[in-house]
Amino acid sequence: MSRIERAAWPRPEEFPAAPDAEALRRWDGADRSARPVRLARLRSRLAREGLDAYFGIRREHMRYLTGFTLADGEEKVAGHSGQFIVGAAEVIVLADTRYAIQAAREAGQARIEPTTYDLPARWGDLVGSLGARRVGVEAGFVNHALWGRLAAAAPGVELVPIEGWIEADRAAKEPAEVERIAAACAVADRALSALLPEIVPGVTERDLAWRLEVLMRTSGAEALAFDVACLAGAEAALPHGSPRDQPIRRGQVLLFDFGAQVCGYRSDMTRTLFVGEPAARDLAVYKVVAAAQGAAIRAVEGAVAEAARTGGSLPDGRAIDRVAREVIDRDGRWPAYGHGLGHGIGLATHEHPSLSRAAAPTPLPTPTVFSIEPGIYLDGEMGVRIEDLVAVDAAVGRAEVLTRFPRGIVVVGE
Amino acid sequence: MSRIERAAWPRPEEFPAAPDAEALRRWDGADRSARPVRLARLRSRLAREGLDAYFGIRREHMRYLTGFTLADGEEKVAGHSGQFIVGAAEVIVLADTRYAIQAAREAGQARIEPTTYDLPARWGDLVGSLGARRVGVEAGFVNHALWGRLAAAAPGVELVPIEGWIEADRAAKEPAEVERIAAACAVADRALSALLPEIVPGVTERDLAWRLEVLMRTSGAEALAFDVACLAGAEAALPHGSPRDQPIRRGQVLLFDFGAQVCGYRSDMTRTLFVGEPAARDLAVYKVVAAAQGAAIRAVEGAVAEAARTGGSLPDGRAIDRVAREVIDRDGRWPAYGHGLGHGIGLATHEHPSLSRAAAPTPLPTPTVFSIEPGIYLDGEMGVRIEDLVAVDAAVGRAEVLTRFPRGIVVVGE
Repeated sequence: MSRIERAAWPRPEEFPAAPDAEALRRWDGADRSARPVRLARLRSRLAREGLDAYFGIRREHMRYLTGFTLADGEEKVAGHSGQFIVGAAEVIVLADTRYAIQAAREAGQARIEPTTYDLPARWGDLVGSLGARRVGVEAGFVNHALWGRLAAAAPGVELVPIEGWIEADRAAKEPAEVERIAAACAVADRALSALLPEIVPGVTERDLAWRLEVLMRTSGAEALAFDVACLAGAEAALPHGSPRDQPIRRGQVLLFDFGAQVCGYRSDMTRTLFVGEPAARDLAVYKVVAAAQGAAIRAVEGAVAEAARTGGSLPDGRAIDRVAREVIDRDGRWPAYGHGLGHGIGLATHEHPSLSRAAAPTPLPTPTVFSIEPGIYLDGEMGVRIEDLVAVDAAVGRAEVLTRFPRGIVVVGE
Repeated sequence: MSRIERAAWPRPEEFPAAPDAEALRRWDGADRSARPVRLARLRSRLAREGLDAYFGIRREHMRYLTGFTLADGEEKVAGHSGQFIVGAAEVIVLADTRYAIQAAREAGQARIEPTTYDLPARWGDLVGSLGARRVGVEAGFVNHALWGRLAAAAPGVELVPIEGWIEADRAAKEPAEVERIAAACAVADRALSALLPEIVPGVTERDLAWRLEVLMRTSGAEALAFDVACLAGAEAALPHGSPRDQPIRRGQVLLFDFGAQVCGYRSDMTRTLFVGEPAARDLAVYKVVAAAQGAAIRAVEGAVAEAARTGGSLPDGRAIDRVAREVIDRDGRWPAYGHGLGHGIGLATHEHPSLSRAAAPTPLPTPTVFSIEPGIYLDGEMGVRIEDLVAVDAAVGRAEVLTRFPRGIVVVGE
């Protein structure tokens, strides 16, 4: 573990600049070209499973398959707007009067159908217009009450529960998707670098979280991937804590968990900094977490190189989780993280694949992007987590850490 | 309609200041005192309906009934954390390792139970520990797949679909809830006032939306109620459009739809300003919308006064919607809004009651807070919406417009 050294502060200009208008146009064009391919993949699976339509309601699936874009959380007020039905020859996108113009603009290849909150009243006609009798429905997202009402509204139409189809497709990332995740990583890297001089004893967690948000959103992030976590000292033991109005103090660890969104795609990173000279125990915890993370990254690199050489599969998400967990267990001084080692990321902050003790015992998808984020949490005392995104592509032997901010020991506020 | 006059610019200091730490503590205390009362109301309904437990999963219900607080959207990554079961004598709050400390802190009256993504594996034991056999489950929120898995996991436990119980309770607002909504209105009023001098031809919709967000979040808003909409000219015809990188121009209307969150509670307001001297047609549209809004507000005031005098009920949400709609229809030059006239607001941006053509034909609840937001949208040309929040309490004859920013004609960028 002696390789974990104190790192020099990175400067913001060391990271790629925010994407320009040309990049945004290019990515938008890539999506437009990719959507027919994505729809063809879905239709071929529908045909294989004996279904003749698909009813989708996740906002990420809307954008991925139709182009219709809701902001995160907007689905709570959008009613059925953006929900869609994929038939053999046609896609229907629902839009109430508030969203009709937007739907025509963003989902121009689809038939836009007016809707109200009473979807069951139109369900039979809509499905009938596609000639569909067996519809695959997102059983993990359509609520129990709506399911029953749709079933009752068109007794001749069978609702077939499906789960995870589009999630599996979305886990395999297209080049323009990986580019955007990398761009979102750079926005976050750059923002934290720019924040470093502002991190001094006396500023509050909330102030720092806000400043980090401002730095991201004024230099390339169209939105945050999620609310910034900035947690000092014992608060860092809460893996999903919220920043408080508490001033940070010398001698504390300071954990930032944050991400940016660029043209729909997200990043996610965690760094645990030291405010002033690190205490010996805190440094030791940090080194164990860093060693666990490094071991997991090397395991991914090794597996990708081998898969490229042999044409074989990647390991499953349990195996990679185990590598990191064993480093902490072998050290034996502190308990390993209770959460998973990592998660896929893209249009959503958490998506397939999962790297954890409960992950599916099937090979990791490729090409894909996921986080590697081991931690140690000492309740009431302190916590450390280090999180990077890694892009893998077994076919070409690529295993690239997209998060570029140093993983060594960074001391601030001295 | 001659009463709609050009209004002087309000100054930020005309509105109440951001709530101080003492106010936040007082509201937190009010919630702690109110939760046993809210739980008692739920338990008495459970008993009336022959149920012995309730399974809740909405984030707003979590906070309302247990104190456990997730940020908006955080439920997407929180797994089952925060979901809860109310039994006759005890409340169980689920928390995975990431949320265990937070749950103990925020939901201290509850039994915190560790959970993973596999809730069905624990369902039988959890429900059994409460002695429950018939559990009311939120059928409009629990997805079809989970419903089936819970039913299969404990065949002896009946899952009874319920909808809208807690929503109905939350529609009737406690004094400390109304205070927070009013405080959130003041944050928004103040922010738009402070923004007025910055609204000049050439700045973009996106810049203005961001500046309005900064003004809210640096003076009292812990979060936004939703992403700020700033829409110029023809874009204002999109009731849920997103700000673009387009500079605003003299002669356009400029619509802002935005809200703040204060100690969990939200505001929502819309103003349509004029950039430079208004065109005659745009002014005429504005006056019709303002007249429709004024008529609806007066109808609410009249109904509240009468209910206070007679002890009778308030009208339903259809009747109030009709009052505004008829003003636009009678004028006859432009079509009335396709959306509803208004919605309740509180912990969520949209909640009960609804004021619309499809609203329940039952009396409006009291005391409550809802929006009144008629609009006229001319596709490809322009749009106008004016939105205020109104607090009503029939018992004391209160009908108070909480949004204080002027509703008259406001010209900017001259």
